[in-house]
Amino acid sequence: MNRITTLFGIEHPIVQGGMVWCSGWRLASAVSNAGGLGLLGAGSMHPDMLREHIRKCRAATDKPFGVNVPLMYPQIDELMRLIVDEGVRIVFTSAGNPKTWTPFLKEHGITVAHVVSSAKFARKCQEAGVDAVVAEGFEAGGHNGREETTTLCLIPAVRRAVDLPLMAAGGIGTGRAMLAAMALGAEGVQIGTRFALTEESSAHPAFKSYALSLEEGDTKLLLKKLSPTRLVKGAFRDAVEEAEARGASADELRELLGHGRAKTGMFEGDLVNGELELGQVASMFRDMQTVDGVMQNLIGEYEAALQELAHY
Amino acid sequence: MNRITTLFGIEHPIVQGGMVWCSGWRLASAVSNAGGLGLLGAGSMHPDMLREHIRKCRAATDKPFGVNVPLMYPQIDELMRLIVDEGVRIVFTSAGNPKTWTPFLKEHGITVAHVVSSAKFARKCQEAGVDAVVAEGFEAGGHNGREETTTLCLIPAVRRAVDLPLMAAGGIGTGRAMLAAMALGAEGVQIGTRFALTEESSAHPAFKSYALSLEEGDTKLLLKKLSPTRLVKGAFRDAVEEAEARGASADELRELLGHGRAKTGMFEGDLVNGELELGQVASMFRDMQTVDGVMQNLIGEYEAALQELAHY
Repeated sequence: MNRITTLFGIEHPIVQGGMVWCSGWRLASAVSNAGGLGLLGAGSMHPDMLREHIRKCRAATDKPFGVNVPLMYPQIDELMRLIVDEGVRIVFTSAGNPKTWTPFLKEHGITVAHVVSSAKFARKCQEAGVDAVVAEGFEAGGHNGREETTTLCLIPAVRRAVDLPLMAAGGIGTGRAMLAAMALGAEGVQIGTRFALTEESSAHPAFKSYALSLEEGDTKLLLKKLSPTRLVKGAFRDAVEEAEARGASADELRELLGHGRAKTGMFEGDLVNGELELGQVASMFRDMQTVDGVMQNLIGEYEAALQELAHY
Repeated sequence: MNRITTLFGIEHPIVQGGMVWCSGWRLASAVSNAGGLGLLGAGSMHPDMLREHIRKCRAATDKPFGVNVPLMYPQIDELMRLIVDEGVRIVFTSAGNPKTWTPFLKEHGITVAHVVSSAKFARKCQEAGVDAVVAEGFEAGGHNGREETTTLCLIPAVRRAVDLPLMAAGGIGTGRAMLAAMALGAEGVQIGTRFALTEESSAHPAFKSYALSLEEGDTKLLLKKLSPTRLVKGAFRDAVEEAEARGASADELRELLGHGRAKTGMFEGDLVNGELELGQVASMFRDMQTVDGVMQNLIGEYEAALQELAHY
């Protein structure tokens, strides 16, 4: 029991990141049923689709679950109203200013966490009245902070900056890494990549099996002239790297990126034309697991590593 | 007591990184006297200078100390012979193939550690017969691995790859980060940046006080077309970033870099023209401390954080 488990009413301080194209009701409900906190990833859902996933998730678990909302979502007003109407109790917001929507959500009794990549933004969260902060480091898949601060450097900085309940994200896929995050001052973890590669994830099987073959250095932070994004190696990323090496402008990169490539890659399994996003920790994993298997591994390894440390 | 303290004959598993322009006999002997392992940084010393520092270090401490040798050192044969002649007992090698010099050093009874930035190179260390490995992540100052693997992701990967005694480096400047490294499977830590900013460091006072004012995001990994190097913000780094943004070639970057800029910046204190190297963790520190103060902080915070975790 700590501030994170108490805040969300969960057994283990393990949150499954609400990732685009991976985090539907199957994944979220499985994580919640296993004692963690499952999050639906609204970023890749039309409002009607999100409504359907909320209802199916509720039917599949009587444990708490939540929704991740990237604040640059185009129909954000409609989405937020829907979240309230459907009685969602927990919302994680990201990629935007926490001041914009936190008051609205809090008025409706919703618990709000916000994802940050710097101590500076963690302070803004505190001012905005959010209930908890996720501090996400350079290792994380997908969109990432400009400061490139790694989880090892970020967690102590955020811990020092704010008193809010704190979850660590980025580079965490094992119980040992979870213990490391706790040693740094976090009270919980948000795990994306490892859950994206489970059976219950809605990512395409071709993407999952490719992801389970990655080696060190196979994900890289690119697109820094647009919004820094960690991409998995492949034909599309090669094109991005080649363009960046010759000094391509933000406009050229925007054109190269186009629209819908993340869906093409991660949901439709086109590994050539798709944009593939995963965290650096992906290269640690070789086997497709169930959510239950992952949760048991995480907790078992955490406990074992803690015992080892305690007897050091 | 663990494999690292036993191997080096030291009290605490804390090694001071052998950094260019910072790590002379004053710093190394102070760390060794405080129960850690001090390393002289041969990378910025002519052979005669190193000889002098070895002798002064020996006069200043009766505890074990060592020398860090970057393997691309121009007069490497002369340097290695000198190290043997002067009776140095511990050598940390970096930036090169561990197979080249490990047999020579081992024949002379010297304990050898090698610095790596990937599990792949850690395996090469094991084949080469080194006694211990330092795994250094993306957070570290100065030269850095191409894979950009952070310490949080690197330590578990190296731990899984080799059985050798393992030290973690990169992003570690506090007792909590040291505990996190141990949780990940390391048996010791190598700390550069925090020791570079102590009173005993030979870095220029102007560089030290500038370094103690840095904010998040103020160090950045650049020069990736040459050898990836983490640089501190300033006029020279601005020029590098501007050149890279427009797609400058490796040759252009080499010319821009020129020669001797690290000395200009870090040893002579020219913050405009100098190349300034520090790890990402620099932004955590505001006060100039002595080595004794740093060691006491590290150990005290480590113990306190361990107690907290144990009672979690």
